[in-house]
Amino acid sequence: MKNGLKVGLAGVGTVGGGLVKLLATRGDSLAARAGRPIELVAVSTLAHRKNPDADISSFRLVKNPVALAQDPEIDVFVELMGGEGGIAKESVEAALRAGKHVVTANKALLAHHGYSLATLAEKNGVALNFEGAVAGGIPVVKVIRESLKGNDISRVYGILNGTCNYILTQMEREGMAFADVLKEAQKQGYAEADPTFDIGGFDTAHKLALLTSLAFGTRTSFDSIYIEGIESITPADIEAADDLGYRIKLLGVALRTESGIEQRVHPTMVPKQSAIAEVDGVSNCVAIDGDFVGDVMLIGLGAGGGPTASAVVSDIIDIARGHVLPPFGTRSKDLKPYKKAQMRAHEGGYYIRLSVYDRTGAFAAIASRMAAQGISIESIVQHRSRAGLAGSDRTHKGSAAHVVMITHQTTEAAVRKALAAIERDGHVDSKPQMIRIEKL
Amino acid sequence: MKNGLKVGLAGVGTVGGGLVKLLATRGDSLAARAGRPIELVAVSTLAHRKNPDADISSFRLVKNPVALAQDPEIDVFVELMGGEGGIAKESVEAALRAGKHVVTANKALLAHHGYSLATLAEKNGVALNFEGAVAGGIPVVKVIRESLKGNDISRVYGILNGTCNYILTQMEREGMAFADVLKEAQKQGYAEADPTFDIGGFDTAHKLALLTSLAFGTRTSFDSIYIEGIESITPADIEAADDLGYRIKLLGVALRTESGIEQRVHPTMVPKQSAIAEVDGVSNCVAIDGDFVGDVMLIGLGAGGGPTASAVVSDIIDIARGHVLPPFGTRSKDLKPYKKAQMRAHEGGYYIRLSVYDRTGAFAAIASRMAAQGISIESIVQHRSRAGLAGSDRTHKGSAAHVVMITHQTTEAAVRKALAAIERDGHVDSKPQMIRIEKL
Repeated sequence: MKNGLKVGLAGVGTVGGGLVKLLATRGDSLAARAGRPIELVAVSTLAHRKNPDADISSFRLVKNPVALAQDPEIDVFVELMGGEGGIAKESVEAALRAGKHVVTANKALLAHHGYSLATLAEKNGVALNFEGAVAGGIPVVKVIRESLKGNDISRVYGILNGTCNYILTQMEREGMAFADVLKEAQKQGYAEADPTFDIGGFDTAHKLALLTSLAFGTRTSFDSIYIEGIESITPADIEAADDLGYRIKLLGVALRTESGIEQRVHPTMVPKQSAIAEVDGVSNCVAIDGDFVGDVMLIGLGAGGGPTASAVVSDIIDIARGHVLPPFGTRSKDLKPYKKAQMRAHEGGYYIRLSVYDRTGAFAAIASRMAAQGISIESIVQHRSRAGLAGSDRTHKGSAAHVVMITHQTTEAAVRKALAAIERDGHVDSKPQMIRIEKL
Repeated sequence: MKNGLKVGLAGVGTVGGGLVKLLATRGDSLAARAGRPIELVAVSTLAHRKNPDADISSFRLVKNPVALAQDPEIDVFVELMGGEGGIAKESVEAALRAGKHVVTANKALLAHHGYSLATLAEKNGVALNFEGAVAGGIPVVKVIRESLKGNDISRVYGILNGTCNYILTQMEREGMAFADVLKEAQKQGYAEADPTFDIGGFDTAHKLALLTSLAFGTRTSFDSIYIEGIESITPADIEAADDLGYRIKLLGVALRTESGIEQRVHPTMVPKQSAIAEVDGVSNCVAIDGDFVGDVMLIGLGAGGGPTASAVVSDIIDIARGHVLPPFGTRSKDLKPYKKAQMRAHEGGYYIRLSVYDRTGAFAAIASRMAAQGISIESIVQHRSRAGLAGSDRTHKGSAAHVVMITHQTTEAAVRKALAAIERDGHVDSKPQMIRIEKL
């Protein structure tokens, strides 16, 4: 058996604690699985963030993560502190420069600095592995980077944030309003005190930025992502979706188009009769459409100490076996600059819900606005919200009624223009709701 | 860039043809993806089996696969002929002995001879990769062998045969009888002229044998697998399942128990509200339950030239990158002998359908037979088959009525004894139907 692989760990929170526990639980069997012993030798952690479940008393403590990153004893620096810059970035860069392999679950760091860090890793001939950064325990990074490498990928998409999926699932199951479910989720620890990062779609976007680079061989470009959160989703939408055979999920989608790559995060209608519609609660999923393999989907837990530690360990094992690939599967110098497809050029079907005043001519005016933009309607229903009576987010002023439309394939630009005109016409009592339909 | 990796291919049928096409389509880009060129240099194929879609005119033809396997020019022997023994086994052994890496999609060969071939591969320091042998394009071999390596796995299961899944899906959608759907599937090329191998569960069992070894680190033991096919499933069962909130799928399941490992293939009830229930038509899926990662599921196309070629190419790329692991993820000398858990000790819920004569005391007799075996009933319904009127496989003699029961957790032995006694009592007009319920 070869020499042990010496690991330094920075960050012993939920995921770091999970890793300490996994390494302790597996013990000697991990050496057989990795081809050589994996030895955690030093740890850096903020005293007040120490994970009570993880016993780190037997490891050498290094106060400064940057010092740990360059520690002569370690071969691999595991960064589980988080944060898109600051000490996380500084220590990862220090480790790479010192010729240490790096394993991280830090999606924010990589979404913003993935290209430069990958370049640095390759320059120093070391690994920068990040299986835990995307969808927790779901092994999608390795699947795209290695298993599907024979394919040209046309689309990658998924449910990438457990908090949002939990909230949408609960809204549907309990018929509750967004704000009420959010409050409950915060109480139960499924949502942060400041939930903006999750429910606003930013966490999903971080992960999407990494999937895009892996799938399309482009440089990470977080700033190009179109982002909408789930705050605007009402029980009326969830009910109307249900009646029309759909479920609403927050998806991150990256799609190759003729004009470039679309990267978008938004609430999305998916058919109820699909596997993705059954991914509920805090579960995540990622789907990849390849030209030879067809459509592949992976489902699992997208967060938490155990699942993410499982991902981190697989990254460490690859390093133990000497299996070091370019971080995004393509050599950094071959990563193409990201070419953005404009969101207004997005093509697809749309769900539109309008709260329309019951006036003569209102509907004719709406229909003509849609027609003027060349939008054809697949189905239209006047929808009475069941939840509306109990506690919709929106009040139904006067005699306004919900009108729900599903459009045929059209463009984002056309829908936006039509809805702006409809709003200006004054036949609706609130901002129109618009949810994109994803073709599966 | 390193020297090219030279590949010899034996078998240019559906999968081999897909591989030839993939290599031709990807061209130079594959070299960048693999870190070095991948060059198909020689081919062995039976003239009458030539795939018209694959142009092999530019490759050197070697008539005898065994000669190709030892050809001095090749580094990798790709075996896509199929068959559990004969020329496939002979050529794979010859290649391994000659120090050539082997890639195969031959599940029958590995299910029967996996342990000895893995031993031979390791002895010669070469790869024996078989991603394409299990669930086609779904990258489950690498996921278990590498990505989930930090976990102890308690169960692996899946829908592993597209023909069976297509037949069950069609029976449900069209309300048709098994025999009629089978005939149609044969016409459309979804089922073989002799369908026994698929519908009898043997193909599923071959794949399960490989998953078991990967997941539990045991030697392959095909002969220990309990196998039931889908021939006995009637429209009445599918309807009753639907009414009770289940769907019927042919699953292969390997489960770690205290007395050993259960390996079983049988029609199975899964909850309709689950991702696995939405895996329909020719799609496959594999689920893995790990102690740290939780439950992971992979869904995709389980057969066909494109998906399987995608898998074969990922195996070749691993070899090109020098990433060679023990075939089953554990060194052959460390693979434990398979310890079988007896099927009669299987624990779970059961669906039982009886065609009961409408006689005083019949039901009381049945209930007492169940009680005598300690089986408690979760729900019981008298079920009138809708399809029964149109064309059930079973005739409803006299005034017999379907009684459908769902049991609480019990054992296979108890259910078998109870059903045997019920049959002996003479209150039923046909053999009781029994379908296991899998807890997801």
